[in-house]
Amino acid sequence: MKGTKVIRLKEEVQLNNPVFLVGLPGVGHVGKLVAEHLIEELDAEKIIEIYSHHFPPQVLVDENSEISLVNNEMYICSTEKSDILVLVGDHQSSTGEGHYELCDLYLDIAEELGVRRIYTLGGYPTGQLTYSEEVLGAVNNPQLIEELKKVGVVFKEKEPGGGIVGASGLLLGLSKFRNIDAACLMGLTSGYLVDPKSAQSLLKVICGIFEIKIDEGALEKRAKEMEKIVARLKEVEQQQQGIPEAKIRDDDLRYIG
Amino acid sequence: MKGTKVIRLKEEVQLNNPVFLVGLPGVGHVGKLVAEHLIEELDAEKIIEIYSHHFPPQVLVDENSEISLVNNEMYICSTEKSDILVLVGDHQSSTGEGHYELCDLYLDIAEELGVRRIYTLGGYPTGQLTYSEEVLGAVNNPQLIEELKKVGVVFKEKEPGGGIVGASGLLLGLSKFRNIDAACLMGLTSGYLVDPKSAQSLLKVICGIFEIKIDEGALEKRAKEMEKIVARLKEVEQQQQGIPEAKIRDDDLRYIG
Amino acid sequence: MKGTKVIRLKEEVQLNNPVFLVGLPGVGHVGKLVAEHLIEELDAEKIIEIYSHHFPPQVLVDENSEISLVNNEMYICSTEKSDILVLVGDHQSSTGEGHYELCDLYLDIAEELGVRRIYTLGGYPTGQLTYSEEVLGAVNNPQLIEELKKVGVVFKEKEPGGGIVGASGLLLGLSKFRNIDAACLMGLTSGYLVDPKSAQSLLKVICGIFEIKIDEGALEKRAKEMEKIVARLKEVEQQQQGIPEAKIRDDDLRYIG
Amino acid sequence: MKGTKVIRLKEEVQLNNPVFLVGLPGVGHVGKLVAEHLIEELDAEKIIEIYSHHFPPQVLVDENSEISLVNNEMYICSTEKSDILVLVGDHQSSTGEGHYELCDLYLDIAEELGVRRIYTLGGYPTGQLTYSEEVLGAVNNPQLIEELKKVGVVFKEKEPGGGIVGASGLLLGLSKFRNIDAACLMGLTSGYLVDPKSAQSLLKVICGIFEIKIDEGALEKRAKEMEKIVARLKEVEQQQQGIPEAKIRDDDLRYIG
Repeated sequence: MKGTKVIRLKEEVQLNNPVFLVGLPGVGHVGKLVAEHLIEELDAEKIIEIYSHHFPPQVLVDENSEISLVNNEMYICSTEKSDILVLVGDHQSSTGEGHYELCDLYLDIAEELGVRRIYTLGGYPTGQLTYSEEVLGAVNNPQLIEELKKVGVVFKEKEPGGGIVGASGLLLGLSKFRNIDAACLMGLTSGYLVDPKSAQSLLKVICGIFEIKIDEGALEKRAKEMEKIVARLKEVEQQQQGIPEAKIRDDDLRYIG
Repeated sequence: MKGTKVIRLKEEVQLNNPVFLVGLPGVGHVGKLVAEHLIEELDAEKIIEIYSHHFPPQVLVDENSEISLVNNEMYICSTEKSDILVLVGDHQSSTGEGHYELCDLYLDIAEELGVRRIYTLGGYPTGQLTYSEEVLGAVNNPQLIEELKKVGVVFKEKEPGGGIVGASGLLLGLSKFRNIDAACLMGLTSGYLVDPKSAQSLLKVICGIFEIKIDEGALEKRAKEMEKIVARLKEVEQQQQGIPEAKIRDDDLRYIG
Repeated sequence: MKGTKVIRLKEEVQLNNPVFLVGLPGVGHVGKLVAEHLIEELDAEKIIEIYSHHFPPQVLVDENSEISLVNNEMYICSTEKSDILVLVGDHQSSTGEGHYELCDLYLDIAEELGVRRIYTLGGYPTGQLTYSEEVLGAVNNPQLIEELKKVGVVFKEKEPGGGIVGASGLLLGLSKFRNIDAACLMGLTSGYLVDPKSAQSLLKVICGIFEIKIDEGALEKRAKEMEKIVARLKEVEQQQQGIPEAKIRDDDLRYIG
Repeated sequence: MKGTKVIRLKEEVQLNNPVFLVGLPGVGHVGKLVAEHLIEELDAEKIIEIYSHHFPPQVLVDENSEISLVNNEMYICSTEKSDILVLVGDHQSSTGEGHYELCDLYLDIAEELGVRRIYTLGGYPTGQLTYSEEVLGAVNNPQLIEELKKVGVVFKEKEPGGGIVGASGLLLGLSKFRNIDAACLMGLTSGYLVDPKSAQSLLKVICGIFEIKIDEGALEKRAKEMEKIVARLKEVEQQQQGIPEAKIRDDDLRYIG
């Protein structure tokens, strides 16, 4: 496969007031957890699969020993207010050039489907194991700030200080060229662990934006399991003065499946 | 040389019930050992050489001080049941993009030759120096599982947990787009050493699939030599509490020549 | 976005005796500091924005939580003697190929605007925390040397010994093919820290070249703050015999914002 | 500059029995030293300059503070027996793909000039600081072996064991496709230091091949200086049990200028 392959699973897609929501893997997998939870709870319909030589040369193995080539996928979640086009995936692009190319492709599809608003979801690493409910925002148009504050998003001068790296940021930058308003919403998270608790905070913001109610049971359960891990880690930290970073991250990533 | 060069050594290739078998270098060189052993024992005929700028810029030197540019090669092994198209090689692609491009090229050739079934061979690292006869399977179509279980392949939920990286996995993923059934068969191996013993276990499975008998003498001999190395390593391990990983791998790779 | 996107903010640009001045990020951010200071003090007009998949996939966040995609930008600073086309930016290319492609693009634009002289600004790392006022020069045409010596540039046989890596050097090399005279002017700097003091020395040379006077207040203030940091570092160095390199660099880069 | 730029400095080049000799930077800079020495001593004429985005984005600075963009260059050295087309350069390609592309370009030029024989020069790392006069050979056609043995080249089964990486090997591999005979000649060298002494051994072989006499004064002088460095290193080694590898290499590379 040279380049990128877009497989459309549905011929005609008509959307009502469509909004593009992006939850790719990243810091604490916060964005991915929220997007996958929405897909699950809102009985979303998969409409597009995207395969690309910019993803790693890798397949995943499911519970039936069946493989699937790593990809990114788009789903439709219908709510009263909006149809949400949700992008999720196993990986982000492996290369810088691939990031630019794929993000532009995603925006082509979103525009074609009539999207006029984008939310990219992510995590914002604090380096601390203590929990915060904060969801930090950044926008490509300052007019979005007031309405996002109303649903609980916090805005801080020049934060994140190092900017936003990867698809979550790039989609904001590239959608500006197309005059599409976009915001990046980041749940605060340690940066060491998959963080379903931060995902719960971010989910609350999303529910506020779309005026929907979502059962948090699955995230809640995961968050509880993770809390136990964090508690154990804090003990270790107290003993060792310093987090055994690489090891924790590994154990935990297995957790997400 | 820009791009990839395919040299066909035989004009017309007519195959009987062709099956594509892939044994490229990888974990424990298990797949490569099996494929090369089959080529040797079944008096295979080389039909195609593939050179590519996606391989390292490297030549190998043979016993007569003659060089050969690193490549991948395809052979035909004839058995009563099937003609086996075997892919072996010095290297896999150096880049992610190259992996996608080359795997698609291999599938183009396989399809052109009428292949309807693919087996990719590899090793599955356990991190343990203790030996296991197990051969783990993953498929791109669950209907393959029952027949593979009959020849001794083991299937485990979501294993390998990290998916399958490289050509062995990618060929399964990409052949799904072409509706070609494919399975990846992985001999369990420590991951530290070239493993002819694991190759013997995998070879047994292959013999079962093709209903053939293969002399295992050469692999047996190599396995015996390797057993001595492993025994020495275990002694070292007992003394040192921990495997001197990098060093072992190096010494051993020289072994395969 | 595939490739590179050039956005021209002004239709017709007529320049008087145009000179191209390049201050991209690099050693001690010396070149970037000088170029940004000129833009500020000379009320420069932005005429071009350049976005490229050769830059990192990253957006920056400003004081209003508004993002901007990383880019390179061109401004016009008018002086009596010359109109200065100034190139500044958040990043240099992430890849070698990107460097060649972007530098050629910059030269295309410069030539189109009538540029016949280029100065690239940078820092020359000494590895020492002691300050030097020296500005080292290298040229693509030895005839430039005499006039640059008159404004205080120092030339040393075969220095920098390792050549000049990145856009500052490459622009000199590539402009030679176009018969455009170019010099690289490097403020001596430790290499460990953002260096507004070295930027002041380099600014003096630039003022000499263009026969202008520039208020140095902003650089002066930054230099004072940095002096305090350096003083503390020297203390640490005396105690520890060796500079805690990685850490300092990090703290300091936050300084530049 | 996109891609690669070939600048021909001479319109018509007519060569007598042309042989292509390649001395690019590599292990111990042995090949580069020999090729540059030949160019110097045989009053060679530069006929071609090659610039490429596959080289690093770098310029070098000469004794007059004048920069030159890193490149590869071809010279003609005339001897009674043959005109030698010599390839030298500052760098090899930075990428694998670039290696394949540039080597093919070099062979295009060589073929166009009528070349029917190629010698690539390099160093073969022993890991030992003790000196050996041996010159190891590898060929793309075994018929070359006998005549090379006569001028002192040594051939050893499957050596170098890891094959030959980079242009020296690749040119042998790629010229095989064009039915051009080629040999790689490698002076044994520690691998830690620039090695003019090994270059002297290799030069003797070259003189034998072309039936020429070359003043070795310049190499001799360099070798003497290097011997002193090696003597000091051996002392250090005796004291420290182990070569301070990285440091030596650095100091020494400055030596070559």
